[in-house]
Amino acid sequence: MALLGCGVVGSQVARLLHEQADDLAARVGAPLELAGVAVRKMSRKRDVDLDPALLTTDAHALVTRPDVDIVVEVIGGIEPARALILAAMAEGKSIVSANKALLAEDGATLHAANRADLYFEAAVAGAIPLIRPLRESLAGDRVHRVLGIVNGTTNYILDKMDSTGASFTDALEEAQSLGYAEADPTADIEGFDAAAKAAILAGIAFHSRVTAADVHREGITEVSASDVASAKAMGYVIKLLAICARSDDGRSIGVRVHPAMIPRTHPLAGVREAYNAVFVEAESAGRLMFYGAGAGGAPTASAVLGDIVAVARNRIAGTRGPSESVYADLSVHPMGETVTRYHVSLDVADKPGVLATVAEMFSRHDVSIQTVRQEGRGDDAQLVLVTHRASDAALSSTVEGLRELDIVRAVASVMRVEGDEAP
Amino acid sequence: MALLGCGVVGSQVARLLHEQADDLAARVGAPLELAGVAVRKMSRKRDVDLDPALLTTDAHALVTRPDVDIVVEVIGGIEPARALILAAMAEGKSIVSANKALLAEDGATLHAANRADLYFEAAVAGAIPLIRPLRESLAGDRVHRVLGIVNGTTNYILDKMDSTGASFTDALEEAQSLGYAEADPTADIEGFDAAAKAAILAGIAFHSRVTAADVHREGITEVSASDVASAKAMGYVIKLLAICARSDDGRSIGVRVHPAMIPRTHPLAGVREAYNAVFVEAESAGRLMFYGAGAGGAPTASAVLGDIVAVARNRIAGTRGPSESVYADLSVHPMGETVTRYHVSLDVADKPGVLATVAEMFSRHDVSIQTVRQEGRGDDAQLVLVTHRASDAALSSTVEGLRELDIVRAVASVMRVEGDEAP
Repeated sequence: MALLGCGVVGSQVARLLHEQADDLAARVGAPLELAGVAVRKMSRKRDVDLDPALLTTDAHALVTRPDVDIVVEVIGGIEPARALILAAMAEGKSIVSANKALLAEDGATLHAANRADLYFEAAVAGAIPLIRPLRESLAGDRVHRVLGIVNGTTNYILDKMDSTGASFTDALEEAQSLGYAEADPTADIEGFDAAAKAAILAGIAFHSRVTAADVHREGITEVSASDVASAKAMGYVIKLLAICARSDDGRSIGVRVHPAMIPRTHPLAGVREAYNAVFVEAESAGRLMFYGAGAGGAPTASAVLGDIVAVARNRIAGTRGPSESVYADLSVHPMGETVTRYHVSLDVADKPGVLATVAEMFSRHDVSIQTVRQEGRGDDAQLVLVTHRASDAALSSTVEGLRELDIVRAVASVMRVEGDEAP
Repeated sequence: MALLGCGVVGSQVARLLHEQADDLAARVGAPLELAGVAVRKMSRKRDVDLDPALLTTDAHALVTRPDVDIVVEVIGGIEPARALILAAMAEGKSIVSANKALLAEDGATLHAANRADLYFEAAVAGAIPLIRPLRESLAGDRVHRVLGIVNGTTNYILDKMDSTGASFTDALEEAQSLGYAEADPTADIEGFDAAAKAAILAGIAFHSRVTAADVHREGITEVSASDVASAKAMGYVIKLLAICARSDDGRSIGVRVHPAMIPRTHPLAGVREAYNAVFVEAESAGRLMFYGAGAGGAPTASAVLGDIVAVARNRIAGTRGPSESVYADLSVHPMGETVTRYHVSLDVADKPGVLATVAEMFSRHDVSIQTVRQEGRGDDAQLVLVTHRASDAALSSTVEGLRELDIVRAVASVMRVEGDEAP
């Protein structure tokens, strides 16, 4: 076996391979031997004691060595990870990867080149078993929807905002000081990380090919303390959700990442701090949820080890696990066709006829209002509306129309409402 | 494929095999053909349209037919299920079973006789993928503890008691009227059902052989409305838990089913109504939770179908999935060696020195008290104590000693406290 990368995750994988060697041999039926570890710099300090003879900077030579049959890629990023995996696949090696970016951007190339196993449990939601349950346990079921909290950084920030009333900026700073957010937090707070995971989940759940580019993506930087407070007052909590759902006619799928309000009674509402959880609605199984640590060296290494055991067992048995399943071949519909509910907050003039004018604008675009509430008086008057299900296109047209009304001073916020099947 | 049983689960399995035939064929790589369905009575009305030619009352002839390669057993109970599975195994058939009672009582015989695959995802927690994640996803990790709500009936009853203040009897009656509890609820409320599932989970999580007889079992019939209220006042909720845990020295395991208080902030506390959830603590993966419907025809059938797809794929590939793993061979220690925390409620005389006398009794048995609270006055005085971690044997001796004290009128309740790692 070859290990590519010896950073936060790689060093934990190496440590566990060593510490759990006897257990792993018992489970595989043969010892797992580490033939080499590819690193960028030989001299760097690492979190694990490794025989220096195992280290190499020539990753390409390592993955094509005849005594290597399994390649574990924990480098991340597109290149050189892709080239190394493809080189290993050309030699018939089995691959275990934790690389969400690569799988979401170009999974098709990897699956097409794969001649043995390509396992990637660690690519989505760290330690949480998710790929295997979706690919195998639910293989006889029909998934309707996947709702996931798949980014720990943003969940930590939104949870702090909810529990302490902090602003986004303050919560982000706290997350950075505690190591939950990076110095450059863009990939997390703008939803890129969650979008990659959404693409991978959607492809597996719906047996279709989905890439990161197909995913509608909105981050959490616009979520204000007042949005959080408003959600709280209504019994909701704001989470950054990755949502993959079949359209009502079942012919296409929507894949999106954005902040949304969910009822506090929803199982996802209780997911605190940097934890991840994925909620699955399937036709026969009903509502399932998978919860756990979505990141971190040891949790991610646990998922990698599970995959290593599986591909090693498959090699010994001379077989392969389930390969890419894209037989359903559903297309991803544009965001405008997504149907959901919306929470709209407007700063309005406090005079007679305002509600009638606003309601008429919703009605003109066929968006039906479920509840409306006026807060404040005079210059501070706010109108808070929650709609019935409507298409994103219809809601966008409504909001454009509202912005042009004299009596609407500002559209303070528009937030989707999910996980609440009340009509 | 042969289907044994066509009741609540079997009829759903038959329906899904028919309705999802194309999807299943795409996932397996070959069509799944139902060769026959064994039933007790030919004439009974069923929830599925079946070709009458498929029905037979001769289950033994069906499972040994040469054109049957997979046998799906959803009869339940020990016999004739065991004899039929063994007869099928003798012919090299692959088995999918949802039979928790049989696997918990005599799994060893089945595993020993197994010459192909024996899959049983549906035997524990219905639709929730649990066996596969434990056997495969966590194959490279080390499980420390499994805490599960694995019986929907008792969770429904305890949830009603918690949310409405109802007595056990009233909550049970409501559960019966809604179909969540059977006319004879013994197997559920006395913990037999949960104990069978605990045995299966413990065996898989700790790679050891555990049977239902090894499981310490207490039901929920003694849980009173006042216990529930007392838990609530302290920020706890009472759940019937199946707990499988490594001892502190790692050399043995404890397997037990009993009502316990857990903090309301624990992920299991939010599991409402008849839902099930299993919380797993593993060395590298950390805290994981799996949540969903634990019973019912369609959810259980979803799990059965996932297994059918897996064993069918294995047969086509000429291989087998993971077989029984008992290499760790840990023994199950007696309940007395279990170490946990306790909530003890005493009816006491309201006079000076009571607390000192009670505290001395705890101290005599080396049970350390974390908090103590007196409620009421005079004849209604109650002393509520929560202990630090202590062995069950020490706690039992303490309680015996308390019962002999003049100033203790009654030991009103003793409840274990779990999921709270505060010292």
